[in-house]
Amino acid sequence: MMGVSGAPPVVKEKIVPLEAHGVKLISLGMMIEPDQPAIWRGPIVMKIINQFLQDVAWGQLDYLLVDMPPGTGDAQLSLVQATNVDGAIIVTTPQEVSVGDALRGAKMFQRVGVPVLGIVENMSWFECPHCGKPTAIFGSGGGERLANELELPLLGQVPLYPRVVEGGESGRTVVLEEPESNAAKAISALAERLAGSLGVTIGAVASR
Amino acid sequence: MMGVSGAPPVVKEKIVPLEAHGVKLISLGMMIEPDQPAIWRGPIVMKIINQFLQDVAWGQLDYLLVDMPPGTGDAQLSLVQATNVDGAIIVTTPQEVSVGDALRGAKMFQRVGVPVLGIVENMSWFECPHCGKPTAIFGSGGGERLANELELPLLGQVPLYPRVVEGGESGRTVVLEEPESNAAKAISALAERLAGSLGVTIGAVASR
Repeated sequence: MMGVSGAPPVVKEKIVPLEAHGVKLISLGMMIEPDQPAIWRGPIVMKIINQFLQDVAWGQLDYLLVDMPPGTGDAQLSLVQATNVDGAIIVTTPQEVSVGDALRGAKMFQRVGVPVLGIVENMSWFECPHCGKPTAIFGSGGGERLANELELPLLGQVPLYPRVVEGGESGRTVVLEEPESNAAKAISALAERLAGSLGVTIGAVASR
Repeated sequence: MMGVSGAPPVVKEKIVPLEAHGVKLISLGMMIEPDQPAIWRGPIVMKIINQFLQDVAWGQLDYLLVDMPPGTGDAQLSLVQATNVDGAIIVTTPQEVSVGDALRGAKMFQRVGVPVLGIVENMSWFECPHCGKPTAIFGSGGGERLANELELPLLGQVPLYPRVVEGGESGRTVVLEEPESNAAKAISALAERLAGSLGVTIGAVASR
């Protein structure tokens, strides 16, 4: 999704992260063959998380963002136990079944002492490229209800926009390619809101 | 999503499944409080899967479908080890990042000896309710590429349709509420295709 792929080089027993758009990154997908499943039980998930934190030559970072799978299982628990996490961002879609899962995720982070920085609602609406009219495909209001229930800020609402998906395939983000689109403006505004509220830290899960 | 909720009763030390639309069902969401996270590492996931298979008064079933979370981790492995799984259905969206994950999922099931029955492409396109024109929000062709690569049938392509989401919130399936919609026709056709190819077994993961 960042436009880079392939195995990262290893120098002096450290994994050298790939880089795109000024962001150093590492992903499980780079370390395994595309058609090889990662059939890994919990204890191995914990090892990989530790390796990504300790064996990667990150250098000096402003922020470390960790994009987690949904859920409240081994990956989330292991990360929290492996490092000092400054905060979590909970992403939901507007629909009720997604809000329920997101609520559980937020409660899990709070229970293990990780502050939840806010809620992001994704796929908030779709603007038809043919007629320009919006449709709330996944319903509406879920992000706001979740934010109210948890007494947390709703950091932003990002519309469904085909260029965002295209950007994920090609590695060119809509924020650079089409900064005036509603999707790019929503993403930029939520990043600014988050940075503003934090002062020094920003991230899906951020660690100094 | 089936329109039932609440804790299932326990009779003679067996969990009695809830029932909707002639389908008996049990879900982790029924067993825990809505705002309580299920912070469970792999070994507990394995216990829950065994409990759902052995401690639920299923009675005589035609098919047992298990809706799994995405991924190739503890839940999938534990299910395969706990029971005799007749087949897996792999669901993807058209976009490349989803196809990559789905390919890994399919390879995992094949590696542990579970036949993959076919591919379902979800969110294949969106038909604007205002102007009627379709948009391939998540790109197109991913399901077909995956099916070709795995030499498996593409069982169906289900469009994004707001009524499907509404039905998931209210428990009224679009197949009954609006059987002439493209989404309902796609879902019915893929169920028939699957049943036809199997003879006696149908399911996301099915067990006699």
